[in-house]
Amino acid sequence: MSAHAAQRLGFKVTILDPDPECPASQVTPFFVQGQHIDPDALYQLARHCDIITLEHEWVDPEQLSIIEEKGREIYPSSKTLSLIVDKYIQRQSFCAAGIPGPECEPLYSVEKTTELARQWGFPVVLKARHGGYDGYGVRIARSPEELLREWPSDFQNWCVEEFIDFDRELAVMAARGRDGKTAVYPVVESIQTIDGHRCDTVCAPAPGLGEEETERAKSIAIRAIEAVDGIGLFGIELFHTKDGRILINEMAPRPHNSGHYTMDCCVTSQFEQHIRSICGLRLGPTDLLSGGAAMANLLGSKTGDFSSTSGVARALTAVPQSHIHWYGKSKTRKGRKMGHVNVLGSSPDEALKTALIAREAFWRE
Amino acid sequence: MSAHAAQRLGFKVTILDPDPECPASQVTPFFVQGQHIDPDALYQLARHCDIITLEHEWVDPEQLSIIEEKGREIYPSSKTLSLIVDKYIQRQSFCAAGIPGPECEPLYSVEKTTELARQWGFPVVLKARHGGYDGYGVRIARSPEELLREWPSDFQNWCVEEFIDFDRELAVMAARGRDGKTAVYPVVESIQTIDGHRCDTVCAPAPGLGEEETERAKSIAIRAIEAVDGIGLFGIELFHTKDGRILINEMAPRPHNSGHYTMDCCVTSQFEQHIRSICGLRLGPTDLLSGGAAMANLLGSKTGDFSSTSGVARALTAVPQSHIHWYGKSKTRKGRKMGHVNVLGSSPDEALKTALIAREAFWRE
Repeated sequence: MSAHAAQRLGFKVTILDPDPECPASQVTPFFVQGQHIDPDALYQLARHCDIITLEHEWVDPEQLSIIEEKGREIYPSSKTLSLIVDKYIQRQSFCAAGIPGPECEPLYSVEKTTELARQWGFPVVLKARHGGYDGYGVRIARSPEELLREWPSDFQNWCVEEFIDFDRELAVMAARGRDGKTAVYPVVESIQTIDGHRCDTVCAPAPGLGEEETERAKSIAIRAIEAVDGIGLFGIELFHTKDGRILINEMAPRPHNSGHYTMDCCVTSQFEQHIRSICGLRLGPTDLLSGGAAMANLLGSKTGDFSSTSGVARALTAVPQSHIHWYGKSKTRKGRKMGHVNVLGSSPDEALKTALIAREAFWRE
Repeated sequence: MSAHAAQRLGFKVTILDPDPECPASQVTPFFVQGQHIDPDALYQLARHCDIITLEHEWVDPEQLSIIEEKGREIYPSSKTLSLIVDKYIQRQSFCAAGIPGPECEPLYSVEKTTELARQWGFPVVLKARHGGYDGYGVRIARSPEELLREWPSDFQNWCVEEFIDFDRELAVMAARGRDGKTAVYPVVESIQTIDGHRCDTVCAPAPGLGEEETERAKSIAIRAIEAVDGIGLFGIELFHTKDGRILINEMAPRPHNSGHYTMDCCVTSQFEQHIRSICGLRLGPTDLLSGGAAMANLLGSKTGDFSSTSGVARALTAVPQSHIHWYGKSKTRKGRKMGHVNVLGSSPDEALKTALIAREAFWRE
């Protein structure tokens, strides 16, 4: 989706990926096969590109800095990424900037962590410092016994966090240009799948969120990007607690699932905004094109091959105004993000209802 | 732009083009090098594709029918194309359906054509029956002397048309699905370059067009598609005369320059609508996303290489809400369509004003 946005603006796009049949390789003839942690592959990519960006954060910032030293621009920069890819360091960066969020400490020993947990109160959250996503690398311990049971063997790579008993999850996309200027999208509500691990639907703006809360959420988003000197589009996930607090959960240094609705529902899509910011172009307006918008993820329901064609046909028949995005992943598996549906509406609730009708039709067989 | 729309819906796209660096080849890895009139190249393309469509109409319908007989779907069909690619036959098809348009006859001899011209009144328009576009293949004769002077040596391939002294040019995009259902976009005004040969800007809806005239224009568009049993998205160019008549000028069997504004300004873009119709998907709503929209073509100003990057930067700085589309053509030349700017506004006039500011900034050096 970022590649499409870049191409519209006249840029040629080269992809680095180990899989020559990955979604991005289907939208450009320029492809370097290789791992993003393989220095040779990175060099080859850098030879083809003036500007490099990432679609996930499982990178080694040090390796990227070698490319930067050779004169290639990478956004977000290796310095920014070094403050984000390790979730404990990320938490420290936000804490140092005075951004409200849960307490967080590295794991040293069961004893010390149990003590912390008693201090914060159980439950606590064990989190892999690197590489976790969509619930992978997250464990919840409700008691000292569970803490012992969930204790990871590679505990040095984990941290422990205060458990936030949140009412709902909010998210904000925000971009920061090379000139330091920022643009912030509407605050959305991100509704998770029943297991709580994966974004299921998004509606914009977040229903019932007051003006003051909206401004508070947006301000957190901007301060979070500034805390890591970020350039590019960032997804900031927030907790909204029952007592009205808004706390930062995590930041993704890239266009984010909870910003997919911007593609068809905002003046400037998050993907074009990302390309604009990393290319030094002026950021675009972030306004919604109507009173509300919604996104429903198309999550894989089974493992194996799946043809999207009849699903797309059913969804568009049910809701002709829906925008279907199918990523072209060659294999589906339960819970895998295979695509999404965007719908504009007169209100976020109405848009969500419509998006769910389209999605239901998509999977019906 | 059609390829992008198809990819979003989950389709893989293969391009046939003689030039491996053509714009479309930059957005997909699947490419067949060859001429669209070379049967071998067409076979190779057909081997890769379930559904074939065209981005220009300089094809040989008979050759396409051979591919159709081998079981590949082509939209618009060879039968439809055979009623369109020859401009005299196209005119006859519309005339037979009772659609108002200028008189038209083949060229037989200078004498016979002079007689016709006296009957209709000078000036008359000489038109190449095949392959003309943007003013190429069009000659105007204001007197019997000019007719003699402009008489083409290959006159058998030309026709002569009544000259319509129109007030302005209108255009309508309309789609027709495989099930015969149609969807019609707003009627737009298409403003030509000073030489009159090339679309320069478009605003939607056409300023000052009354409801009755709008409905008349839309009805012509639908009847024109039905007259050629068209499936796909068609661009219908119309003359609007001072005395309020609306006459059909030409029909393009594909997404059209005067429909580019739909990309960022309508619920469903003409490109997605085209893909939906040829793939048997339900057509989408054609509503404008605000009170007005405008498109300004980025026409090449000189011959040679041209880098768009700084132009894009200037345009977005001047008008951050503008949507720049740069096609990635490797060479520019005076008048060549290199890209376009889309802008949403509160009215068509305001949108046009803004689009012109963005365009002016694009070319400023």
